[in-house]
Parts: sequence; C-alpha cells; structure tokens
Amino acid sequence: MARSTFVGLVQDRAPDRACSDGGRDGHRSCDRGRASRRARLAAGRHARRAEDAGADRDIPRCNDETDQFEFSVHKQPQLNNAREHAWRERLKPYYTEFGIDPAAPVPSSNRTPFDVALCAAVEEIKPEVVSFHYGLPEAALLKRVKDAGCVVISSATTVAEARWLEANSCDVLIAQGYEAGGHRGMFLTDNLATQVGTFALVPQIVDVVKLPVIAAGGVTDARGIAAALALGASGAQLGTAYLFCPESKILAPHRAALKAARDDGTVLTNVMTGRPARGFINRVMRELGPINDIAPEFPLAAGALAPLHAKAQAQGTGDFSSMWAGQAASLGRELPARELTAKLADEAQALMRRMAV
Amino acid sequence: MARSTFVGLVQDRAPDRACSDGGRDGHRSCDRGRASRRARLAAGRHARRAEDAGADRDIPRCNDETDQFEFSVHKQPQLNNAREHAWRERLKPYYTEFGIDPAAPVPSSNRTPFDVALCAAVEEIKPEVVSFHYGLPEAALLKRVKDAGCVVISSATTVAEARWLEANSCDVLIAQGYEAGGHRGMFLTDNLATQVGTFALVPQIVDVVKLPVIAAGGVTDARGIAAALALGASGAQLGTAYLFCPESKILAPHRAALKAARDDGTVLTNVMTGRPARGFINRVMRELGPINDIAPEFPLAAGALAPLHAKAQAQGTGDFSSMWAGQAASLGRELPARELTAKLADEAQALMRRMAV
Repeated sequence: MARSTFVGLVQDRAPDRACSDGGRDGHRSCDRGRASRRARLAAGRHARRAEDAGADRDIPRCNDETDQFEFSVHKQPQLNNAREHAWRERLKPYYTEFGIDPAAPVPSSNRTPFDVALCAAVEEIKPEVVSFHYGLPEAALLKRVKDAGCVVISSATTVAEARWLEANSCDVLIAQGYEAGGHRGMFLTDNLATQVGTFALVPQIVDVVKLPVIAAGGVTDARGIAAALALGASGAQLGTAYLFCPESKILAPHRAALKAARDDGTVLTNVMTGRPARGFINRVMRELGPINDIAPEFPLAAGALAPLHAKAQAQGTGDFSSMWAGQAASLGRELPARELTAKLADEAQALMRRMAV
Repeated sequence: MARSTFVGLVQDRAPDRACSDGGRDGHRSCDRGRASRRARLAAGRHARRAEDAGADRDIPRCNDETDQFEFSVHKQPQLNNAREHAWRERLKPYYTEFGIDPAAPVPSSNRTPFDVALCAAVEEIKPEVVSFHYGLPEAALLKRVKDAGCVVISSATTVAEARWLEANSCDVLIAQGYEAGGHRGMFLTDNLATQVGTFALVPQIVDVVKLPVIAAGGVTDARGIAAALALGASGAQLGTAYLFCPESKILAPHRAALKAARDDGTVLTNVMTGRPARGFINRVMRELGPINDIAPEFPLAAGALAPLHAKAQAQGTGDFSSMWAGQAASLGRELPARELTAKLADEAQALMRRMAV
C-alpha cells in the first residue's frame, strides 16, 4: 500500500510521537480562531501508516483524534525497457564500486497508486481524513471516499492546480511551495521552472478558492506558522521540523544531514524516484542530477538505487538515500514531538500577539 | 552610470510617485516599532536615478527624505568574440524576421559597475543610503562611501552571502528570496538549483546576522508585509507592486503582462542580460531559455537583443523585452503610489492587529 505520511495536530493537542520518515511527513498547526471546521478537522488528525491499515487497526493513537491516511494517485508507470536499461547502465559503476552484481534483479517499487482495494480499506476503516498526492483519484473512487464520510485533502503547487482540486470536490487544499521537502505534488504541470515559492503561492491560492488552505514549504518554526497565517492560510503544515524529533524513524545519515542543514543544502531532484522531490544533496544527486532525463518514470527510478542505498546506508552514508527536507531545515529543533508541538503553538501565539503592538 | 532602482518609504510617509521600471525597483515598507534606526533610515528613503545624479541635482523629491542611490558591482565582463558570435548567430533568424541587418553593430551595455567616478559623485552628493547589487564594491571604494556618511545596503540570496555582507561592513541586508522579480543578487554562487525561497531565507538570515534584514521576493500586499515581519524581517521591500502604479515608467507590454499576471507566469532567465533574473515569460525566453549557456556574460547578452526589443516593442509586444516581475505579481493593484503606500501600511497594521485576536 502507499505510505501515509501526515501527522496532524491542532495547537492545543500535541501528538506524543512523530511518525515521520520523509520530508512530506507533516505536522499541521492550525489557527483555531480562523479555520473553518473542515480545516480544523483536516489539521487536527494524527495519521497512521496506510501500509498498516488493513493489517492492524489497533495502532496506538497519539491522541483522541481520528486517523488520517495518505495515498499517492500517480499514474502507474509503463515499464520502458530501454530507459530502465540506460538507467542501470548509468548506475553500473556504483554497483561495481560496492561489489554488487549489476545484473542482479532489483526490487520493484511498492508505491501502488490508490485503487479499488485501497478504497475498500478506506470504506471499512472510515478515517476522518484522507489525503492524496499528485491530484485526486478517479471520480468513482473519490465519491466512495467522500461517501464514507472522509474529508479529502490534496496538494496544489500552482493556482491552476488549486482551482482544479476545488472544482473536483477536494475539501481542503495544501498550498505546497517551492521550499517544501519531499515530492512535489504537481500534477497539471511538469515544469519546475515555474514552480512557486510559498510566500507567493499561499495568498494567490487563498484569493481564488473558497476551500481552507494549509500552507506548506519552509514552515519550520513559530515564525513560519505566524507568517503562513498572515498570508491568509487557515493552517500550516510542518514536515521537516518533525524529522528532528527523537521519535522520527529517519536513518542516521538523514539525521546527521538535518543537524548540519544549511539554507542552500537541498535541491529538487528526480534521480531518486523519477519525480521531482526536494532533499539534502547527496552523491548520486550531485553526480547524476539534480535533474536527469534518463531517470525512469516515477517510481521506477528508485528500484535500481535500492541496492546502492542499502550498501551505502550500511556504511553510514546517505550517498544513495532519499533524505527529504525543506529549505528551512536548519530551523529545526530536536525535541520530542509533543513538546515541540506545544512550544510551536505557544511561540506562534505569542509572536502574533507581539506583532499587534 | 548604473541605474538606480529603489524607491523607499516608511509606513507613514508615502512617496507621491513610483520611479519603477523593473522588478527590482522597490518600495520598502518598514515596521517602525521593531526596526533599528539604520533599518528605518534604509527603508525610509526615496531613490532617484543614479544616471541623473551628476547631471541634475534638482530632481523633484517625493517627500522630505534623503535620496538613495543604487549601483551594480558586477565584474566588468571580458568580451568573448566566439560567444558573442554564437549569440548573434542564434538571434539571426529573429533579425531576419524583423528586417534588421544581422551584421549591423549593436549597442553595448551602459551598465557600468560602481567605480571611482561614481564614487566621487556619491562623495559629492552624500545620499543617505547607497545600495549595491551583486555584493559590495572593493574595500577602498566602500570605505569612501561609508566615510561620506552613507548607509550601505546590499542583497543576499543565501545565508552565506548574508554572512559575507555583514563581515564586509554592509549596514543593512536585503534577503532576496527566489520569488523576487528582476536580477538575482547572487554573488558567491551561480547555482540556481540551491536558491532559497523567501519563506525559508528570511528567518535563516535573521538568525545569523545582527544587521537589520529587509525581506524581498513575493511581497506584494499587506499580507506579505505582515508575513515578512513575522519571519523576523525588520522591513519588507516591494518591487512588482509599484510597477502597477500609473507613475511607473514601464512599457505597454510590461503593463499588460502585469494585468494578466499568473503565479506561474514568470521564470528565472539568463537570456535577457546574461545573469539570472525573474520576469514574465516572453518569446525569446520561451524559445532560447529560460537558461541558455550561449548567452554572453552579463550584461553583454542584452546588446544583441536591443534591436529586437526596439522593433517588437514598436509593434506592441514584449517578445524581446525584459519584463521583470516577481511571482506574486497578480496581487498588485493599479493605484497611485502614495495611495498604494498608505493602503499597504494601513492594511498591514490592521492585519497584524487581527492576528493577535
């Protein structure tokens, strides 16, 4: 099943753990006074992994809020043998370097797009919130999700995508700015040159949709939360901030990269998975990317990288690992998730009070 | 002389005209309560064109504030005949299309970097503020500017550039985010892939320098001003917003592009001048760019485009014109500069009061 990545919260309800393993894993802090009920619902839920959803319905909850599941709705890729071959040829020197047989089969991706089976699981579990990345599922499946009573969230990277999501029955929008860590949710465009910074994106989306808008991308501390609300967002989604938490399941090189984070230490790359995503610059991104047309279609590129990731990772490096992070990673603090959440809420409220003086 | 591009203001002192002709032309709105005296000085001045400085010291002032001059400190380019030739060859089909002799001499750029002569003019006029783009002038010239009593401002596009500017005696920093219109001030890096969005850049710079920081890039309305202050900036610089003013001297196609602005309607391009700058996508950017290695070194690329600009412009198109704008251009309002300024100040203050509720 597709992984679920969101961790949500409202200001006065802190989850006691972070489920984060990547830049898109997110906590949301929501402005209670201004958000609509739906935004508050969307922002007030704590996710559990969709992978676990069918197998285990007794996952400990972080608070008394209902679950949120996240699914990818990417188009299933067509296997292109020539492109796959070119990609493996390009990676061959690395295989040789690590003593891996370049002819050995590589794992295929487990990133299944949302489908009938997953939809049936949603209907059974009835999570309060279901979020999608790369648009929305086909209308019939979306209707089933909504008929199950779920609030539907998806990400927009442009005003055009925001309009499309609103026109296609999305309930809450995430405005995902250029600074955001992890995969860009872009689905109506593949032009990275016209992707929009959070500062410019949020108010322009807020102005043209009626739906609640959650700001994402570069929001790591209380200043970011206050700024997101100033720009007109109903809430803010923090991803990278929670990767710092001791509860976060990221691997050691990723954690080390977070501690050494710089403003200019990330790029948008397609070489890790085949779709553009923002992460800390590693060796393969530096040597083959950040953008390279030979990377197979998402998520196939990740397959041939997996053995290299495993070997390099075992040696303590993230040279071949996705280490997603946003551009404001350096503002993160290593605090337990609950404590971080409480601090962020207090600090954001205090800051907003000071701004009125 | 280098063109001057800044228009500054404080919240309660509105200039009565906009001197804007490009995205970097800026009005600054400054948070009086929090800004240091130097920031207020920097933000409270109204610019006049440096081109006019020597010739005419009786330029009407917009208010009772002192002038601010802006200079470029780019390295004088080495003429590379092969590259120039390749560029003109690439543009030849356009020359033919417009009936221009491709062999005719093209104008050379009048963008002279700050030098001894300009420094002497500064010493004579003693503007209260002198701002630089692309770093700072050599130490001896900078010392003369500071000895003349001028407050020195420059732009940083990364934390590293901010540290450098502080270490090299800059008085006030502009944090120029990825969204900003016009030329990027980058001077320690030429890597566009690691340029930082305003939302992420401002707090990271604020945290490592003691100097006042002015946020720029995507700030077009009161929400942006409040957000900039929330992120820790002492003030905000608005460029694109003032291009809308009737007083703005931009050409008709530029004004038309502003009225039709979209969030995803600009790109960073080097084909207009040789250095990366953000502007509305035009024909030459679409067909040759946005980034193309054959564009000659800044500012030489602009030379061969000038005849095309003139012809296309006469036909009412901006196909070959620099139409600088930031990513939040769609938020602009066509109001007289003084009225816009007063509105922005009122609205930002009201918004900040509401945020405290």
